[in-house]
Amino acid sequence: VTRLPASIEKVVGALGKLPSIGPKTAQRLTFHLLKQPPDDARSLAAAIGALHEGVRLCETCHYFAENERCDVCNDPRRDLSEVCVVEDALNVLGLERTGAYHGLYHVLGGALSPLKDRGPDDLQIESLMRRLRDGAFREVILATNPTVEGEATAVYLARLIGPLGIRTSRLAQGLPAGGDLEYTDALTLQRAFEGRRNYDLEP
Amino acid sequence: VTRLPASIEKVVGALGKLPSIGPKTAQRLTFHLLKQPPDDARSLAAAIGALHEGVRLCETCHYFAENERCDVCNDPRRDLSEVCVVEDALNVLGLERTGAYHGLYHVLGGALSPLKDRGPDDLQIESLMRRLRDGAFREVILATNPTVEGEATAVYLARLIGPLGIRTSRLAQGLPAGGDLEYTDALTLQRAFEGRRNYDLEP
Repeated sequence: VTRLPASIEKVVGALGKLPSIGPKTAQRLTFHLLKQPPDDARSLAAAIGALHEGVRLCETCHYFAENERCDVCNDPRRDLSEVCVVEDALNVLGLERTGAYHGLYHVLGGALSPLKDRGPDDLQIESLMRRLRDGAFREVILATNPTVEGEATAVYLARLIGPLGIRTSRLAQGLPAGGDLEYTDALTLQRAFEGRRNYDLEP
Repeated sequence: VTRLPASIEKVVGALGKLPSIGPKTAQRLTFHLLKQPPDDARSLAAAIGALHEGVRLCETCHYFAENERCDVCNDPRRDLSEVCVVEDALNVLGLERTGAYHGLYHVLGGALSPLKDRGPDDLQIESLMRRLRDGAFREVILATNPTVEGEATAVYLARLIGPLGIRTSRLAQGLPAGGDLEYTDALTLQRAFEGRRNYDLEP
């Protein structure tokens, strides 16, 4: 098979290492960049090259920040009595997009996983407990993923937090908005049943 | 909504401009890069930044090349009597991958399109005709896309080439391998009918 110029192969290879980018997509993206003015590729390169420079983790909640503390922790309008515990910084973004939550966050950096050899010391659990002991929190929302690992992490944290007398909660599980019962898996359906709510119509 | 650090927003924005990369995918890719060692992002950036440097277009066929002529045109084992005309360099890659073709290529750089105001002078048609007049070609395979624009371009080229006494051909159209008649659109099915071949079993 005829080889492509080395500089093209390099970009195809580097893009192909990104998650969800297969070899064909990597090729298509590379050829797209080749057809655009070289300045487009150069500005993309400059942005990616500088990605880590302006970014650090918030010292309080471990979300991405430009200074010691992130924009959420610095925001005086946030509700200081609630903290929402998530596995990943990407989850903060998703929750912020809903506009439904106004408290603080705590990014664990993953979930407990015996398979991946990830124990409590590998997650930001100690700093969470310190925050809870030092703060005036009324509720901890355990928003780890609805997976085996996420559930186990939530149970683990709920047990740790219990003695502090702070209420813990878990995000509701059930049917996704716009979903279809016919295509819903059994576990989701079971949880939607378990979590059913009384349907109180106004009299 | 809480903003992300500027260096993150920049990468999300730049990746989001690539075709088939939506804002959510751009975010996911960016966060992936953030979690990897900074050297990973830097080497991706270096590759993209150098993409155009080592690349030029082959002076003969306009495929990507590192020198005046591409690897295909330089390959002494290629069949010099056949030239396959394609719209895009990406098509060369796809045809090479089949391993079924051993002739030369000619990249037009698009198809004729009144809508996009692209006429014969905007494509590499003059250089194709020059090649055909100067060379010893027996066949021109018109491998433009099976779209309205690609078909019109093939017809246009076939008429131009006719007087040179060189045979022109067009890639077969029909059912895709592994396809299902039930899910095949009417036009494809019609062309599969028109292009049907005698089924000669060995006696």
